Amino acid sequence: MAKIAVLGYGVVGSGTVEVFYKNKESLEKKAGQELDIKYILDVRDFDDSPYKEKFTKDFNVILNDPEVTVVAEVIGGLKPSYDFVKSSLMAGKSVVTSNKELVAAKGAEFLAIAKEKNVNFFFEASVGGGIPIIKPLHACLSANEIDEIAGILNGTTNFILTKMIRDGMDFEKALKIAQELGYAERNPSADVDGHDACRKICILASLAFGKHVYPESVHTEGITKITLEDVEYCDSSDCKIKLIGCAKREDQGKISIGVFPAVIRDESQLAGVNDVFNAILVRGDATGDVVFYGKGAGKLPTASAVVSDIVSAVKHANTSKSLTWADSAQDFIKDFGDFRCASYIRLTAKNVEVTKAVIKALFGEVTYLSRKNQPENELAFITGVMSENETVKAAEKVSDGAEILGRIRVLDY
Amino acid sequence: MAKIAVLGYGVVGSGTVEVFYKNKESLEKKAGQELDIKYILDVRDFDDSPYKEKFTKDFNVILNDPEVTVVAEVIGGLKPSYDFVKSSLMAGKSVVTSNKELVAAKGAEFLAIAKEKNVNFFFEASVGGGIPIIKPLHACLSANEIDEIAGILNGTTNFILTKMIRDGMDFEKALKIAQELGYAERNPSADVDGHDACRKICILASLAFGKHVYPESVHTEGITKITLEDVEYCDSSDCKIKLIGCAKREDQGKISIGVFPAVIRDESQLAGVNDVFNAILVRGDATGDVVFYGKGAGKLPTASAVVSDIVSAVKHANTSKSLTWADSAQDFIKDFGDFRCASYIRLTAKNVEVTKAVIKALFGEVTYLSRKNQPENELAFITGVMSENETVKAAEKVSDGAEILGRIRVLDY
Repeated sequence: MAKIAVLGYGVVGSGTVEVFYKNKESLEKKAGQELDIKYILDVRDFDDSPYKEKFTKDFNVILNDPEVTVVAEVIGGLKPSYDFVKSSLMAGKSVVTSNKELVAAKGAEFLAIAKEKNVNFFFEASVGGGIPIIKPLHACLSANEIDEIAGILNGTTNFILTKMIRDGMDFEKALKIAQELGYAERNPSADVDGHDACRKICILASLAFGKHVYPESVHTEGITKITLEDVEYCDSSDCKIKLIGCAKREDQGKISIGVFPAVIRDESQLAGVNDVFNAILVRGDATGDVVFYGKGAGKLPTASAVVSDIVSAVKHANTSKSLTWADSAQDFIKDFGDFRCASYIRLTAKNVEVTKAVIKALFGEVTYLSRKNQPENELAFITGVMSENETVKAAEKVSDGAEILGRIRVLDY
Repeated sequence: MAKIAVLGYGVVGSGTVEVFYKNKESLEKKAGQELDIKYILDVRDFDDSPYKEKFTKDFNVILNDPEVTVVAEVIGGLKPSYDFVKSSLMAGKSVVTSNKELVAAKGAEFLAIAKEKNVNFFFEASVGGGIPIIKPLHACLSANEIDEIAGILNGTTNFILTKMIRDGMDFEKALKIAQELGYAERNPSADVDGHDACRKICILASLAFGKHVYPESVHTEGITKITLEDVEYCDSSDCKIKLIGCAKREDQGKISIGVFPAVIRDESQLAGVNDVFNAILVRGDATGDVVFYGKGAGKLPTASAVVSDIVSAVKHANTSKSLTWADSAQDFIKDFGDFRCASYIRLTAKNVEVTKAVIKALFGEVTYLSRKNQPENELAFITGVMSENETVKAAEKVSDGAEILGRIRVLDY
């Protein structure tokens, strides 16, 4: 019999308890032993809950109970989660978590403690909600060297972009609807500024490349500057704008990594990912491109990943050798100025013919796009592949009364 | 140090050896110990191979060598693979295989022996080539009751259908190109008649529902009757025709299962899967729809799945408790006559008005489709949801000089 403690009874926590008891019988079959949730930690009272006798407000009750072998942390944030997870691992309990902020900030530290204490630290729910990605990446694709990962990792921004693309709604209006539907927070910064996607690509990159990538090391842009004009130009050339987190193996043990809105072709498996769905493309040296798609958030999908991890933690009494990465100085991360891609650029010109000549001089041959009701003095084009620094430098030199209105990187997935 | 034997040095076998030695160092790190391939079994001579000292023509050398703890069977077919796999498991060796025919026919027997002998029987490569699906299904989605699985499971037929849809090529011509490119065998029956897809949905359904589904129990149709006219009608209503293998949990412990061409809407994540790619949609009660996409065949993708299984077999010394299913009488499989779906039907009429009245009488309200250059006496329509038996019965009653030219089931994924 394995006893479990669930820390936090919010959306994911209550979902975890719900999924656990709904499928308890089949979970026990899969785990090979009886299972029960002994404690639920929350500062609030839940006197009407059928599980009310399991609630505690004192984490030490859980920490000091040797019967509890698996702790599920679903509080979120760094405080007090960091202390709870660390002391649980130190006490020889396995920990599973849905907390991407915590894993992105402290994963290497926790994995080292878990290894030392011979327990598990699992976090399938921290990326892609209910989409299996962490385990497939480290177990099923283990015969591959992972060359690249690129994903639509944030459902809220994907919902907003889908509204802009499908319904011609501007960013502000689409955000308002996302807030009304509960997809976006009142302060939407973590989503729309790309921080949430950044945490997730950090976790995936750390796992794929074996060294901890910290969020501070990642060039991160959100979607707030995307306009309907950009959407229309891209649409006219069979492309979509998506917020992409990507990481790529480079020469000499380095990687490049970033989070930013990107133009991708309609044929890409990532282009058809709409609404709150997520998708993660993994490019392995043997298996080629594999894509994982599903609901990236939500109570039950996320809870189902937490519960699967609980079962895995019970089944595998000791640490998973492959699910690990080392702490690391961040010098293996290439300067984002060297990141190479094509760019979509939109600008207004005083004299279109002159500006076209300037563009040719600065960017070489480019492909011009068009849109309905395009103003005569507006130009949009896609450059060839250049480094970030080269692109920025060339863009700064655009002159003669021309003004750049927007730039979006173009990715080839 | 774990010693491995590879049975068969054909496409997948040589790929397995290639991927193994290419990534040996990182595989050993993941496995937590040294690894080597000690034997390669093949009846042919490979005197020029860098691995020539590993080759043997005598399976008993492998069977009787206690150093060999993992056997990779990549010969294909039932003979002699069945005997090799069975005696390896009986001798206490773990077996990994890419052989879908063998797993679909003998999976329950092998899993029972593996359990008894406390060794592993893994077969990630048998479905979806390099796409991780077996392990995610039994491990990552373990908190879910799987309600449905639907997949594009055969790359050859998907390539042919893609050629028909994109290039307006007829079936015979598309098949010929598939053969020229090496995607289809000279005798293409296993692919185009749906048998290959049938074996794969049997494996997925057995795993998802816990009881062995044998290929003989599955209603199986291929794509040979699909015409360009069907493709055009579907295109005009934003649908695609795909060869789908699907299995669904029904009431009272039953399941429904089948393999057949199906009309699916363009918004479906399965509709955008083109060329030789595969995709598998898994509908869980907690996680909703999750889709796995990638190359369903090919030397290196398949080999990478075999090698990942080798690493898993080395890492986990004893049987995986959840990767199993029971042998079973086939009475839990619902009669296909009770399978419920809408249908696309195409027919020629002598008198269009009369036939439309007959259609209304037999099928109720239907949605008519159109295509370019549609003959005046040709009709195509989509019915409401009916059972297979009801649909067949109604179709038989179409008379008054009308003749049904084709019917394709419509699925809602």
